[in-house]
Amino acid sequence: MVQPATDSVDAEYVQIGRGLIVYVCFLKGASETMIDNMVKSVLKARLSKQTDGGRLVSILDLPGDIMIMPQSTLGGKLKGNAMKFNGNIQKEEGFRLYSHFVEKCEKAVASANVETGHNSIVLYGTYGNKTEVFSTESPTNGQYTHYMEF
Amino acid sequence: MVQPATDSVDAEYVQIGRGLIVYVCFLKGASETMIDNMVKSVLKARLSKQTDGGRLVSILDLPGDIMIMPQSTLGGKLKGNAMKFNGNIQKEEGFRLYSHFVEKCEKAVASANVETGHNSIVLYGTYGNKTEVFSTESPTNGQYTHYMEF
Repeated sequence: MVQPATDSVDAEYVQIGRGLIVYVCFLKGASETMIDNMVKSVLKARLSKQTDGGRLVSILDLPGDIMIMPQSTLGGKLKGNAMKFNGNIQKEEGFRLYSHFVEKCEKAVASANVETGHNSIVLYGTYGNKTEVFSTESPTNGQYTHYMEF
Repeated sequence: MVQPATDSVDAEYVQIGRGLIVYVCFLKGASETMIDNMVKSVLKARLSKQTDGGRLVSILDLPGDIMIMPQSTLGGKLKGNAMKFNGNIQKEEGFRLYSHFVEKCEKAVASANVETGHNSIVLYGTYGNKTEVFSTESPTNGQYTHYMEF
C-alpha cells in the first residue's frame, strides 16, 4: 500500500541500478482509465540501449530497474515569469492515481520477473514529500529524456 | 562559436554548481524567432528556491549556473512500443538553432553578471554527441522538473 507523505523529517534513501526514472504528474481530468496505458507505455516502450549491440529494448527486456517520482512541477505552465499550476489535479485525487500507478507497475514488474527470471525492482518517492535525485550514469550508456502525455 | 559534434572519442567532462540543466529539442517548424523567448523564459522564470527563506527566484537572481544539453529524444512520440522522431527538426537546422540558443544564453548571462557582480556560468553539450549527466543535489533543495513548449 502506497503511503501518503508524512511530516517525518527522516529522509529515506533508496537506490536502483541501471534503469528508468519516471517522473509522474497528473493533470485535471486524469482518471483511473489511463493508468493501464501509462504502465504499459513505461514498461514496454523500447527506450533502453542494450549494453552489447546497442539494440533498443524495453526496460523489462533490458532488464532494468524503475524509480517512480511524483513531480507536480511538470504540470506547470509559464505565465510571465511564474509557473502556474492550475492545470494540476487536486492533491488527494493525484495521490490516489499515483498510488494506483505505482501498484500496477509493481505488479506488472513482479509478474514479468517470474516469467523471465529477472530481478528488476520498482521503487518510488512518497507523494507530497520533497524528493532529490542523485544520478550517476553507467559509463557505456547516455542519459536520454522522453516525454509522454496520456 | 558553438562547435558541431566530432568523431573524437575523447569525452570532455564539465561541471556546474547549483543551477539549471536545460534539455533542448527543436521540432519541425522551430525558427530563429523563438530563440529570444526561450532564452528569456529559461533565465527569468522563477523556478529556483532561495536557500534562505525559500522564495522562488530566477536562475539569474539565485544566482546559479546553467548547463544546456541537446536532447533530441524529447521530441519523440510513442507509436506502439517505439519512439518515433518524425517531428524533430532536421539535424543541420537543429544545430544552427541550438548554437544560437547557447550563444544568446551566454551573452545574456554575461551581461547579467556585469550588472549584478555574480559569476554564473553557462556550459553546454555538443550537438550530436552522446552526453551523460551526473547529478548530485545540494542537500537543501529538491530537484524539480519543468517542461516548456515554444
